[in-house]
Amino acid sequence: MKIRIHNARILTMADTAEPFIGEVNIAEGRITYVGKDKPTNDNIWDREIDAKQNLLLPGFKNAHSHSAMTILRSYADDLPLSEWLFERVFPVEEKLTEDDIYHLTKLAILEYLTSGITAIFEMYLNPEMIACACQEMGMRCVQVGAANNFGTTPKRVAELYESLNNVHPLTGYHLGFHAEYTCDEPLLLEVAELSQHYKAPVFCHLAETAAETEGCRERHNDMTPAAYLASLGIFDHGGGGYHCVHMTAADIAIFRERGLYAVTNPASNLKLASGIAPIADYLRTGVPVAIGTDGPASNNCLDFFREMFLVTGLAKVKEVDAAAVPAFSVLQMACVNGARAMGLNEAMTITIGSMADLIMIDLNQPNMQPLNHIANNVVYSGSKQNVAMTIVNGQILYEKGEFATGIDVEDIYENANKIAARIGGRE
Amino acid sequence: MKIRIHNARILTMADTAEPFIGEVNIAEGRITYVGKDKPTNDNIWDREIDAKQNLLLPGFKNAHSHSAMTILRSYADDLPLSEWLFERVFPVEEKLTEDDIYHLTKLAILEYLTSGITAIFEMYLNPEMIACACQEMGMRCVQVGAANNFGTTPKRVAELYESLNNVHPLTGYHLGFHAEYTCDEPLLLEVAELSQHYKAPVFCHLAETAAETEGCRERHNDMTPAAYLASLGIFDHGGGGYHCVHMTAADIAIFRERGLYAVTNPASNLKLASGIAPIADYLRTGVPVAIGTDGPASNNCLDFFREMFLVTGLAKVKEVDAAAVPAFSVLQMACVNGARAMGLNEAMTITIGSMADLIMIDLNQPNMQPLNHIANNVVYSGSKQNVAMTIVNGQILYEKGEFATGIDVEDIYENANKIAARIGGRE
Repeated sequence: MKIRIHNARILTMADTAEPFIGEVNIAEGRITYVGKDKPTNDNIWDREIDAKQNLLLPGFKNAHSHSAMTILRSYADDLPLSEWLFERVFPVEEKLTEDDIYHLTKLAILEYLTSGITAIFEMYLNPEMIACACQEMGMRCVQVGAANNFGTTPKRVAELYESLNNVHPLTGYHLGFHAEYTCDEPLLLEVAELSQHYKAPVFCHLAETAAETEGCRERHNDMTPAAYLASLGIFDHGGGGYHCVHMTAADIAIFRERGLYAVTNPASNLKLASGIAPIADYLRTGVPVAIGTDGPASNNCLDFFREMFLVTGLAKVKEVDAAAVPAFSVLQMACVNGARAMGLNEAMTITIGSMADLIMIDLNQPNMQPLNHIANNVVYSGSKQNVAMTIVNGQILYEKGEFATGIDVEDIYENANKIAARIGGRE
Repeated sequence: MKIRIHNARILTMADTAEPFIGEVNIAEGRITYVGKDKPTNDNIWDREIDAKQNLLLPGFKNAHSHSAMTILRSYADDLPLSEWLFERVFPVEEKLTEDDIYHLTKLAILEYLTSGITAIFEMYLNPEMIACACQEMGMRCVQVGAANNFGTTPKRVAELYESLNNVHPLTGYHLGFHAEYTCDEPLLLEVAELSQHYKAPVFCHLAETAAETEGCRERHNDMTPAAYLASLGIFDHGGGGYHCVHMTAADIAIFRERGLYAVTNPASNLKLASGIAPIADYLRTGVPVAIGTDGPASNNCLDFFREMFLVTGLAKVKEVDAAAVPAFSVLQMACVNGARAMGLNEAMTITIGSMADLIMIDLNQPNMQPLNHIANNVVYSGSKQNVAMTIVNGQILYEKGEFATGIDVEDIYENANKIAARIGGRE
């Protein structure tokens, strides 16, 4: 598929916050040209698209999600955390089959595409089914192992690391475990060994709630999750934590020294009353921040515009400083840092040779007018309504409200509602 | 215009959180029937619409905005409050002409319609031009006087109260002043007199920032804004405050006793680092809460879905209680309380005889699936993308991404960008 998109405002995210007008060429999943519009022979393109001066931007990287939890959307709201988890989430999850995971992941992918998300950093049950759903729909996905005391073993994570990497251009797999509070020390040491063996980074939930960090201190000689896990060698080859809400200055120093990613999930942290992450501290100290939606049970949607506004808005109110965490920093987290955290260093910017994972933002909507500052418009005013096109791996998967041929939307909805009816998802 | 919308899920907001399937009939700006689908003679309808089991809901009431500040969208971001106000907002506002206000208000109305907002509680310069823009576009608008020391006098507010009420079915005008910190005591006493004279409620900005409440205490014998204004008789006939972030228990008691409305503006309170309003306290004590976007300079968009999520999400994190402020309460604030605050008691619910101000929410989008709980889907997952139709006063003003004939979108964008270029709005 060879695509030419011309007459576009292009924000490459490689350098300035100022878009220029020009064109992007795509072939075989890669960006083959980016620059000013040039004369062209129309015949060589499968699609030639006049962007009408709308904005091209690298796709958003959703750096933490549990996609198939779409089944729990609006099923576990306004509940105390323990009731949410033990009476709603776990009983439903127990009933999920491999097929369910496959269908429910597809539902999430539909929503990612409407929100300009071109890659996900995914942690959930049945990784083979998740990879299958992503490959079929054309979605880029890096999964993370979810080793824990109750199911997935480090051995299984190692098997998946071998079997799910280097088999398909869209999908990969990172080492990981669920969280300190769901893993005993022998298990964590096994994960650390895997990291040493593969020289590979490790990701996990970390410092999401005050209770988690307090519990860790009680269990492990007054060490915080970051300090404890680092002491086991878990982070010797990098990686990072999801949430990272309750972090001490010493924790932040550990993250900075090791280049660990703090993946923030602001909507989830509000809905579950977990707290507000210290994003301004991360920026000040040089900890790389990426952004994730978390799963739909704790959000409840998969809307990157909401997350981006929250990253800066919550930082401002936490710091009591309206200048904290400026919009362009947020856009860098969304497009660039997320990719780097996932090991997708070729999907960070709109540059020649990069993966063709990009989106078109419709500026011809009232929430984008006037065009005082386009990058800020995206972060402060943007909405799914503005996503005119989502391209992953050089394929146009979503365009003006329609999904690519081959994506059967009605079938995906029907399956999701059937599963909800079967396992009692509905209230 | 006689409209029949059948095969709809209808959430009337008059009673339960559970929609039923049926139809709504509209004639001459009023709802003439709501109930189960019934046999009908097709010929009598100007439009007969199959809702395909999508959701009908009363429109959202934006209970605080400064619409024409669309000119400042993305022009005053990531700045300390004083720089934001004195170096960005005021210099631009000084250059705005009456015509500018008219055009820029129209731009805001476009966005309201895309967000399912059917009425606005507006406070800004040149009320006659604002009323004109709303009437031309078919938007419902109740304005609030903005008396202050530097421009608008109470006398002018009284004149507008006389001239802008009871002249057009779409527009009205309430007594009001800007804020305690911009009004001296003689002016406030004049406003109180007007309230006594007309037996009318009074609205103003109130307790938006910690600095405001501290300043008021210094100026007025340690009295908070709520206590001070109440002591002057300002609230003897009701009304309320915009923002209401920094409120003491005594302030909340004043609001409860007098039935004053706390209009919350959560996105603005984040962006300007003002704080998080005590919404759970308001609910506990019985203070009615309505929701507003505030103006686009401090938000920067006019997206009621973002505001609704923030009302519950911020309450949860403030209370450290994931059960705080449940979704249906938020929907009541959005649809019902906002209307009541504005004096639009006939626009609160989908009931026979009510004003035909309603919206259709497209449930056939990935963020609304599965249909575990439709009302919660709207509050936690909804997006402008889901607004399939916005009806004000029985007129379909927005439908599937298109505005009604007579609304010249390109002209509105062009005017906004011309104004931005002329007055130096662009960075």
